[in-house]
Amino acid sequence: MSLREKIEVAKEEREGDVILKDVKIVNVFDNSIEEGDIIIYENEIVGVGKYNKAKEIYNLKGYYASPGLIDSHIHIESTFLTPGEFAKAVIPQGTLCVIADPHEIANVSGIRGIKYILNASENLPMDIFFMLPSCVPSSPYENSGARLNIEHLYPFLSNDRVIGLGEMMNYPGVLNCDTDVLKKLEYFENKIIDGHAPFLLGNYLNAYITGGIKSDHECTNLPEAREKLKKGMWIMIREGSAAKDLDALFPLIDANTYPRILLCTDDRHPKDLIKEGHINSILKKLVKKGLDPVLSIRLATLNPSRYFNLPKIGAIAPNYYANIIVFSDLNNFEPLLTFYKGNLVAKEGVPMFSYEKTKSEGGVKNTINIKTLTYDKIKIKALSDSINVIGASSKSLITERYILKAKIEDGYVVSDTKRDILKIVVVERHKATGNVGVGFVKGFKLKEGAIASSIAHDHHNIISIGTNDKDILLSISILESYGGGISIAKNGKILHLLSLPYGGLMTDKSAKEVNEEYNRLLFLANKFGIELEDPFMTLSFMALPVIPHLKITDIGLVDTDNFKVISIFDVGG
Amino acid sequence: MSLREKIEVAKEEREGDVILKDVKIVNVFDNSIEEGDIIIYENEIVGVGKYNKAKEIYNLKGYYASPGLIDSHIHIESTFLTPGEFAKAVIPQGTLCVIADPHEIANVSGIRGIKYILNASENLPMDIFFMLPSCVPSSPYENSGARLNIEHLYPFLSNDRVIGLGEMMNYPGVLNCDTDVLKKLEYFENKIIDGHAPFLLGNYLNAYITGGIKSDHECTNLPEAREKLKKGMWIMIREGSAAKDLDALFPLIDANTYPRILLCTDDRHPKDLIKEGHINSILKKLVKKGLDPVLSIRLATLNPSRYFNLPKIGAIAPNYYANIIVFSDLNNFEPLLTFYKGNLVAKEGVPMFSYEKTKSEGGVKNTINIKTLTYDKIKIKALSDSINVIGASSKSLITERYILKAKIEDGYVVSDTKRDILKIVVVERHKATGNVGVGFVKGFKLKEGAIASSIAHDHHNIISIGTNDKDILLSISILESYGGGISIAKNGKILHLLSLPYGGLMTDKSAKEVNEEYNRLLFLANKFGIELEDPFMTLSFMALPVIPHLKITDIGLVDTDNFKVISIFDVGG
Repeated sequence: MSLREKIEVAKEEREGDVILKDVKIVNVFDNSIEEGDIIIYENEIVGVGKYNKAKEIYNLKGYYASPGLIDSHIHIESTFLTPGEFAKAVIPQGTLCVIADPHEIANVSGIRGIKYILNASENLPMDIFFMLPSCVPSSPYENSGARLNIEHLYPFLSNDRVIGLGEMMNYPGVLNCDTDVLKKLEYFENKIIDGHAPFLLGNYLNAYITGGIKSDHECTNLPEAREKLKKGMWIMIREGSAAKDLDALFPLIDANTYPRILLCTDDRHPKDLIKEGHINSILKKLVKKGLDPVLSIRLATLNPSRYFNLPKIGAIAPNYYANIIVFSDLNNFEPLLTFYKGNLVAKEGVPMFSYEKTKSEGGVKNTINIKTLTYDKIKIKALSDSINVIGASSKSLITERYILKAKIEDGYVVSDTKRDILKIVVVERHKATGNVGVGFVKGFKLKEGAIASSIAHDHHNIISIGTNDKDILLSISILESYGGGISIAKNGKILHLLSLPYGGLMTDKSAKEVNEEYNRLLFLANKFGIELEDPFMTLSFMALPVIPHLKITDIGLVDTDNFKVISIFDVGG
Repeated sequence: MSLREKIEVAKEEREGDVILKDVKIVNVFDNSIEEGDIIIYENEIVGVGKYNKAKEIYNLKGYYASPGLIDSHIHIESTFLTPGEFAKAVIPQGTLCVIADPHEIANVSGIRGIKYILNASENLPMDIFFMLPSCVPSSPYENSGARLNIEHLYPFLSNDRVIGLGEMMNYPGVLNCDTDVLKKLEYFENKIIDGHAPFLLGNYLNAYITGGIKSDHECTNLPEAREKLKKGMWIMIREGSAAKDLDALFPLIDANTYPRILLCTDDRHPKDLIKEGHINSILKKLVKKGLDPVLSIRLATLNPSRYFNLPKIGAIAPNYYANIIVFSDLNNFEPLLTFYKGNLVAKEGVPMFSYEKTKSEGGVKNTINIKTLTYDKIKIKALSDSINVIGASSKSLITERYILKAKIEDGYVVSDTKRDILKIVVVERHKATGNVGVGFVKGFKLKEGAIASSIAHDHHNIISIGTNDKDILLSISILESYGGGISIAKNGKILHLLSLPYGGLMTDKSAKEVNEEYNRLLFLANKFGIELEDPFMTLSFMALPVIPHLKITDIGLVDTDNFKVISIFDVGG
């Protein structure tokens, strides 16, 4: 596009492409709304004011126009959708930019996973920028599909859409000056480095920030957020499917702090995408809580543009890309029209584009690779009748550690449905090592059959809970056949399978279809006794050894308070 | 400096270099002040909180600590000081960063001038970043020492301290899509481009901003500033020696706009540096007008750091350079201590450093190059008794165009001191072309002798005003001998000369000495009848043909409303 032509259109000496006429323009530079016309030429806004000459004129009297919304931190994999389907789900909600950390697929497929997601997000009508996963694997107590160090990550920086280093979850590594961690920080010194440091305060927080880490999305209480903001971190208020911090952090937003606050979801399940929306649903909550709608929008537009140094997105003004959403109600950000770089890409909730699937799927299909699993591998010989049991709940990712009496049959510890003590199995599924971790969990209340999933943060081995070994094995083996997903089995039969063939994490079905399938799984789980709100989400965090107190990986039970692998059997002390 | 060591100091496991203890810390992230300790290791702040282990501890109970101040737009040459002396003058005032546009020296010495100023500012204990001069020469109606196009400018971008393109004064060139101008904008698309577009509004402003121009420091009224801010420009409020816009723009600063507002001086005379200070004097005015002191400081710290994308300066927090000023009074920002990258560089108004003069002075010394000047060249044969006269005043750079009756002696038009119509002469002094522009000016009220200066924006030819031709020639020729400066002559004798041997613009005398010499010039000018507040500054703008209405260059009288060279004699029409 020639600059000369843009200037001529701005001066009304040449016809523009599109005019949005008499629209109430959300101005994130001075937090105001003013009626006017927006003129677009090719992919940019070239003027705001009074315009009449364009190929296409939308009369939008009474409607609002806002810059496209930005999610400052999301793992696209959390939606179960490939980037193309993700785009179809979120663009009609007004999201035109996300900053994605592909650490789920990286844990499965390493640099091939990152390459896949870069390719698959390349030609979509929204901006998908990437922060490279900083912590693959998340801990030494698990076997993931890859181990990424700086030599793997650095080459990706030549890609324009790779803008920094993703959430540095390994804050103990920063504080302990782990060579590998410091190397990553040093290499990314002149890029953006996102943080992840729950509850870190005081001088330890200083030390963490000294590493060049400039944001945090893990604040769950106000004093923590205030201290981090004071020390120069950009605060991302997270309101996702698993973690919801908006209520706690809402008072952080005031006239003195608002320029340093962003919004993010971190993870977003398809059911929430369908039912509530995406960033627009957070805006709705903010306005309901009494925040000025324009200021709310600023947190998801101009502010991330400033933090991530994306000068051409995040506002409606000349020299910005024409990424604009048109909506009718300041209490309810449901876009009527969505424009990306001047093109209408969604209308009344319906995407107006198709996308071509990437041909570069090497390494992300058929990723389930299990050493033949037999009953022997998941049977537990009773060495004692006192066992360590993981206590799960819907309310928190934190688990309890119970010591309970085991149910023993024929010399083996088995699931005890009456007392809700169920066998939980984690099967290494990347390199067919034959690693299997077996333990017991309380809280799921499954009365019949078994469930299994290839989503198990962050290593994404296969995790299963069951009332009997036969159904456990079956629910796992069906995942192997289909390249991953979520399954439910009863009496030797698979009752439902949501297949997730991309890395065992994603599918290219639509959000709507995925949601329907997921609902079917939830319905069956519920029918078979489970009372947890979302048992598959709860299940996916049973294997995350960076969260207190007791978790299970393919290596075995992990006491995550003391960072050691422990026996199923309580041996005292 | 090793990251490991910094982290260890932050954790108090290693001794820091300096602790500023119990100091009231100005926090520009949330506009607050909180007492605490700042710990510094090598050149960075590594912690804010409670610290006790350092080689040197300053007990600063009762004092304030603020980030070093930033001038967002200045021509260092306007201070008459070389970068080293400039640093000595401003660092004790708390200025630790300036964004300089070396367009004065570039008009004299071209790329050699830019090279000189880059070298001369290299190892100073403050940050001097550069925007490359976009408009050399400023217009086609003058002959400057150089003509810079994109091929000359682009190579400088490899220098880390060159961060963008300086004020695009040629806004008609942008609007008219001049090939050369658009090329410059396109080359700097991914850098920062400063604007300069007085009174530009509406669709023309859209067109100008569409060129990628992101700031403006020329707003002189509130509606203009509001519109520019709304359209995405960062607004620099200028309070310099010549132009003072703070009174008019003060109401612009409110809770909705403050993150987009910066401070600058544009130009700063040594007398003001000595008498009032630098950016600290603007802060003083802001606070006096009722703005919160912390918010005032933010305009000169965090905000420019954000606009110019300088992530390690502009705040007191871990991972920021230890550029800190300590002062005692929130109404009066007079630094007691000034630290740059952890080193004490000024104390109680006295610089604590010396600098080494650059050896790269090629092209900036002995720049006065005049073709022998004789009486004939400046005599005006009376072709009519009605002449065009420039009307000068102290209040504005804008001149009037008078048509007055000429005083004629022996068939030549001469200065008429009684009616205050004085001969004004501009002598081309770069390439000895022999170009001489001669005209008449009203407003100076000089009764005896002549004044001359090699500062004449932007071409910096020699400009002189006098009551008689002899003193005019003398005041000019002394400048030739000394490589430029400002002179005053009477009755065939030079009464004073401020020598400015660097490009005819700067000296390496101290600000104090320069101020004394300048005061001597002012005293003499005043003694000889001149009533203007600063006649040498007024003189320097008589030759700037981008300002209305009538100016004079080496080419002759320029009607700057119609952009044409006109005759001294009014020929009607």
